[in-house]
Amino acid sequence: MTRHDGRSTDQLREVRITRNWLDHAEGSVLVEFGRTRVLCAASFTEGVPRWLKGKGSGWVTAEYEMLPRSTNTRSDRESRRGKVGGRTHEISRLIGRSLRAVIDTKALGENTIVLDCDVLQADGGTRTAAITGAYVALADAVADAKAKGLLAPNAAPLTGSLAAVSVGVVGGVPVLDLDYPEDSTAETDMNVVMTGDGRFVEVQGTAEGRPFDRDLLGRLLDLATSGCAELTVRQQQALDAPARERLA
Amino acid sequence: MTRHDGRSTDQLREVRITRNWLDHAEGSVLVEFGRTRVLCAASFTEGVPRWLKGKGSGWVTAEYEMLPRSTNTRSDRESRRGKVGGRTHEISRLIGRSLRAVIDTKALGENTIVLDCDVLQADGGTRTAAITGAYVALADAVADAKAKGLLAPNAAPLTGSLAAVSVGVVGGVPVLDLDYPEDSTAETDMNVVMTGDGRFVEVQGTAEGRPFDRDLLGRLLDLATSGCAELTVRQQQALDAPARERLA
Amino acid sequence: MTRHDGRSTDQLREVRITRNWLDHAEGSVLVEFGRTRVLCAASFTEGVPRWLKGKGSGWVTAEYEMLPRSTNTRSDRESRRGKVGGRTHEISRLIGRSLRAVIDTKALGENTIVLDCDVLQADGGTRTAAITGAYVALADAVADAKAKGLLAPNAAPLTGSLAAVSVGVVGGVPVLDLDYPEDSTAETDMNVVMTGDGRFVEVQGTAEGRPFDRDLLGRLLDLATSGCAELTVRQQQALDAPARERLA
Amino acid sequence: MTRHDGRSTDQLREVRITRNWLDHAEGSVLVEFGRTRVLCAASFTEGVPRWLKGKGSGWVTAEYEMLPRSTNTRSDRESRRGKVGGRTHEISRLIGRSLRAVIDTKALGENTIVLDCDVLQADGGTRTAAITGAYVALADAVADAKAKGLLAPNAAPLTGSLAAVSVGVVGGVPVLDLDYPEDSTAETDMNVVMTGDGRFVEVQGTAEGRPFDRDLLGRLLDLATSGCAELTVRQQQALDAPARERLA
Amino acid sequence: MTRHDGRSTDQLREVRITRNWLDHAEGSVLVEFGRTRVLCAASFTEGVPRWLKGKGSGWVTAEYEMLPRSTNTRSDRESRRGKVGGRTHEISRLIGRSLRAVIDTKALGENTIVLDCDVLQADGGTRTAAITGAYVALADAVADAKAKGLLAPNAAPLTGSLAAVSVGVVGGVPVLDLDYPEDSTAETDMNVVMTGDGRFVEVQGTAEGRPFDRDLLGRLLDLATSGCAELTVRQQQALDAPARERLA
Amino acid sequence: MTRHDGRSTDQLREVRITRNWLDHAEGSVLVEFGRTRVLCAASFTEGVPRWLKGKGSGWVTAEYEMLPRSTNTRSDRESRRGKVGGRTHEISRLIGRSLRAVIDTKALGENTIVLDCDVLQADGGTRTAAITGAYVALADAVADAKAKGLLAPNAAPLTGSLAAVSVGVVGGVPVLDLDYPEDSTAETDMNVVMTGDGRFVEVQGTAEGRPFDRDLLGRLLDLATSGCAELTVRQQQALDAPARERLA
Repeated sequence: MTRHDGRSTDQLREVRITRNWLDHAEGSVLVEFGRTRVLCAASFTEGVPRWLKGKGSGWVTAEYEMLPRSTNTRSDRESRRGKVGGRTHEISRLIGRSLRAVIDTKALGENTIVLDCDVLQADGGTRTAAITGAYVALADAVADAKAKGLLAPNAAPLTGSLAAVSVGVVGGVPVLDLDYPEDSTAETDMNVVMTGDGRFVEVQGTAEGRPFDRDLLGRLLDLATSGCAELTVRQQQALDAPARERLA
Repeated sequence: MTRHDGRSTDQLREVRITRNWLDHAEGSVLVEFGRTRVLCAASFTEGVPRWLKGKGSGWVTAEYEMLPRSTNTRSDRESRRGKVGGRTHEISRLIGRSLRAVIDTKALGENTIVLDCDVLQADGGTRTAAITGAYVALADAVADAKAKGLLAPNAAPLTGSLAAVSVGVVGGVPVLDLDYPEDSTAETDMNVVMTGDGRFVEVQGTAEGRPFDRDLLGRLLDLATSGCAELTVRQQQALDAPARERLA
Repeated sequence: MTRHDGRSTDQLREVRITRNWLDHAEGSVLVEFGRTRVLCAASFTEGVPRWLKGKGSGWVTAEYEMLPRSTNTRSDRESRRGKVGGRTHEISRLIGRSLRAVIDTKALGENTIVLDCDVLQADGGTRTAAITGAYVALADAVADAKAKGLLAPNAAPLTGSLAAVSVGVVGGVPVLDLDYPEDSTAETDMNVVMTGDGRFVEVQGTAEGRPFDRDLLGRLLDLATSGCAELTVRQQQALDAPARERLA
Repeated sequence: MTRHDGRSTDQLREVRITRNWLDHAEGSVLVEFGRTRVLCAASFTEGVPRWLKGKGSGWVTAEYEMLPRSTNTRSDRESRRGKVGGRTHEISRLIGRSLRAVIDTKALGENTIVLDCDVLQADGGTRTAAITGAYVALADAVADAKAKGLLAPNAAPLTGSLAAVSVGVVGGVPVLDLDYPEDSTAETDMNVVMTGDGRFVEVQGTAEGRPFDRDLLGRLLDLATSGCAELTVRQQQALDAPARERLA
Repeated sequence: MTRHDGRSTDQLREVRITRNWLDHAEGSVLVEFGRTRVLCAASFTEGVPRWLKGKGSGWVTAEYEMLPRSTNTRSDRESRRGKVGGRTHEISRLIGRSLRAVIDTKALGENTIVLDCDVLQADGGTRTAAITGAYVALADAVADAKAKGLLAPNAAPLTGSLAAVSVGVVGGVPVLDLDYPEDSTAETDMNVVMTGDGRFVEVQGTAEGRPFDRDLLGRLLDLATSGCAELTVRQQQALDAPARERLA
Repeated sequence: MTRHDGRSTDQLREVRITRNWLDHAEGSVLVEFGRTRVLCAASFTEGVPRWLKGKGSGWVTAEYEMLPRSTNTRSDRESRRGKVGGRTHEISRLIGRSLRAVIDTKALGENTIVLDCDVLQADGGTRTAAITGAYVALADAVADAKAKGLLAPNAAPLTGSLAAVSVGVVGGVPVLDLDYPEDSTAETDMNVVMTGDGRFVEVQGTAEGRPFDRDLLGRLLDLATSGCAELTVRQQQALDAPARERLA
């Protein structure tokens, strides 16, 4: 089988991770999975939300949103409609929850890191690209906090790395990293978030067309496992390279 | 190992399904998983939302909400806060999407069924109880529509049955159908929605504490599969019994 | 004259008051006036709203809401519309104001009791059923606070009992406790809230069809007075009986 | 007994009704009950709300609001808070419902009249002043519609006149037309809306302090009846006088 | 050229400034520019918004709003729509910013003055009338605070006076103080806020029809300068006259 | 005098205009004024808002918003706060109004172009950069519509070009194109929007510190005129160059 863009079934789209895309943010990444383009900004601030005060723990949370013309046809702004849609809420919660799985909140101290993931262009897989990019921005923000003395030099709030990818069944065949044309016709759609050492943080599989059986679930998890492993390598390469210098 | 309420690891809480709990709704079920108590009302109306008009297909959707004092301590009403929370949105979307997996929207014609799932009392597993009860209410609403001639006698909009259960790892041990004390200490939490013939509609696993591996994932899916099978039997028993007569 | 359901003009519908319908709430009552069914939950919390702090007085308030399918045809949820409707506000205020008429806020100390009155099924008279049930839930919450030592054993925050009933003119004839078919055709509609010793707390009469004169007003008040007296007896019987044991 | 402003117990404050206070509105009245000052504007528009279309009936509705500095201390604007308060809703509904009691909606044809009642200065009795003034603005708007040929010359949508007044128990004594100092200390507070021929449209009595008995209720209704009769005379005098000419 | 109402091109409409139109507000002015009628109320309160606390400075802000029937045809209330429109926001910000240009916030101490500018009738130039009236109300509120000892007798928070006027090009001719018929057909529209000594605080020029050149801009500024000078005289005359006595 | 970044008083920051930065939008520009970076997307859709239907005219409008971490410290999202702030509204209105000054809406036919201007990074002058970039995106969207046959080949909806720049007084000296450090200390701030042929579309001058006189106003307008002329050249160069090919 050939996919519509020539990829093999277990092939990621071209992945680009550009660090320090912004000058102000403590960490920032422009992450691209093919034409999907998400700007991830990590903001480190001292202090925690009210309900955490005095407990000696930090907090990591995320907000996801799509620019109105990130999509094929323009969508209304949620700020103008006066309320945040269910999908936006759901993905924001997923990103925050996933990142917290690799954070030792005690080691973070009473500090907060907010990850803003704004989709500049959408072509499928925006939530998985966001998680993959947000991890890198988060790592940069932690390093920045150490450099500024806001965290102790030996503090280790990050307990591992995190990457995410989508898998699904398109035309009866399990494939990795669906773009929008594939995603919109997939029979089954699954988003998988994994740590760098190959364990699962989130598994969200949905039968869009018809229910799936245990065997198919296994094949999709295989694809996701190899995809996340490859993304982990890309993240590490990006973090090892000297980043574009921030001007702040 | 003994669970805090004496259940074995693969044992459901006591399940009660009371049909026709309401007089007005086309289908209604009070579903109880132990002390969790959800009122599911199915409203059948002719016509579809604007974006579906003229396409010959129907629509099934759901709204989930918790009464303010369903929980241990009172929560503010979302109507008073003026916005629906992310969790409420997310669960409403899950219920609607799951039900649509067993609906042939063409066979439904241009009709809409809304499932209102209101949690009267919460003790863990409200979303899975809601899905399990909503399926029965949906089946009653379809039967009611046939009885009233709103659907043809041979129309078959339901393509299968649907049940849901939570599984998780508590104290290092995989268990079925977590109540609130278990849920609030679980290391891993998974909600699984399955058809009556044992296929998956939704698999949503989350590492609350630490990431989980493929083997553990498999054991949780085993538990969920047997739990859903048992719930399917209970649903069928409820649907086979003569329902409390509605007064409408 | 015969009413459509066979009642005499001065006859209440069947009244059922089920205490401790919920396990968590400090007081809870499922009250039924015929097919009207309202769940009243009393939540006792230490502390008062900001504007009352340090004054040595407590606070009692109420929130009323209808489930979307409590009615013949489904209504939109106020939480989804993003605002609370005028009728909901008005009835919530009426219930809270009425209950405060039998509360000595000094004797309550700096504590707050919120009464949530959620209409599970509506068939006319939901606000009067809510008040009648909420009083019982309130009494249970006060007793519970004493049992837990949150109120002194001899504290007497309740200065009397409270019941409410609707009266109206249907087909030219004054009748007691209107159900929905009667209410929707009534020429005059009046809701009356009274103390157990027969005095008025609220009198809200509205000419739906044509204005009414002083004599008719008097006849409606007579009906309401006898109806409230009977409800007071029912409340007392419910409070005297051993309640369904709560599991909390 | 002397009231704090020297009035006798059955004496209204000085009442001023200024017609055509605005140039654009089809009817407009600045009504003053002592220092309470409400601007009532009646807007006549062809057409009716969607739910009334094609039924041959018109609609009359009202919106009440207080300017932020109408009161002793400034209140936040409801537009800034993003929601309309319960009290505002309740009074708006009361005014609209009361006016509809003297409107034959069939005779109005498929036209709508909106009464905007904006409190410029508040000193007690704003809702009763609003109703009393709104009736005059409504009468002017009906006359204006006839003059413009939007209603037939012999159409008679007004079936009577309408006035409203507050009564209450202050210092143990029933008094008429309470100002703010009286209202804020009243034990019982009642708003009464009556037709020009002395029948009741709305009776809303509330025990602010302690419950009231049937005898006291009677004495308050007597006071209200004489107060409304006097207001009816004032309204008629205002309508008989040549109005300040509008410039529109 | 003759303007539609007979004015010369550099002639203001009739200006009326009525002080102490309200009894409660610390300063209040009913300002009229022809048929445009704006009620300006200044509320002086001790304390400042949170972000200014402890800095020894005061705050002056403004809120502008139009009554629904201030205009030719009724507009919806922003409170009912649940959000404040862009134009309302913009004008509120303009008024507040302009007034702060003549306020020494240090001399005001930690006190806040809110200017509520409610348009009772609109016939063009509502924002410039509002600023012109608000200045007088502000001056009265400052004087009132001194009289009450809330400001030191020698405190001088007002550093100058402030007036505003609109200018524009109508039918190719620059004119002063446009009314609504002129404003709605103007090719260029400019609002100018000036101090009493003839300097600019705000210049907001907009090409409604076609772009304008530097020469035309100069002629409009000339007109505005003379108009503001005349308004400054009127303001001073109003402030010099004994004001209608407040009753508070 | 030397500015903090070494520029002369009449020197723009480095200006970069990257066309077709997005693949989906009919026109898109990433515009940079130094470190200020705004993504402008033009969406062309057939049809017009309801109030314009059937009049044969098109519509151009704009929405401006800042990403939460575009600024030095993170701001809350307006979508989460549930309302759009005054500043956002004001700038959105300014951009839309300015663009309409160079649009012949009749020549546009019944089509709508929405300009989304999202600030990815803010360092002063975001609204002027947005207008300058939006014009280029608008020109591309018009060309795209012609290429697709949605506009006639000879249709000329653009009547001129449009650029904008800020000027202000910093440290007593008038300067061009203020960055954030300059803007936050400016005594006077002015935003000027001009056509390519040197006429004014918007002049918005504000005395931040102290009022300004006519002479200073003149010097600021001189600076703005030369700045806009230079921006016009840059826009033309960008439009003359072959654009990055879109992938759509």
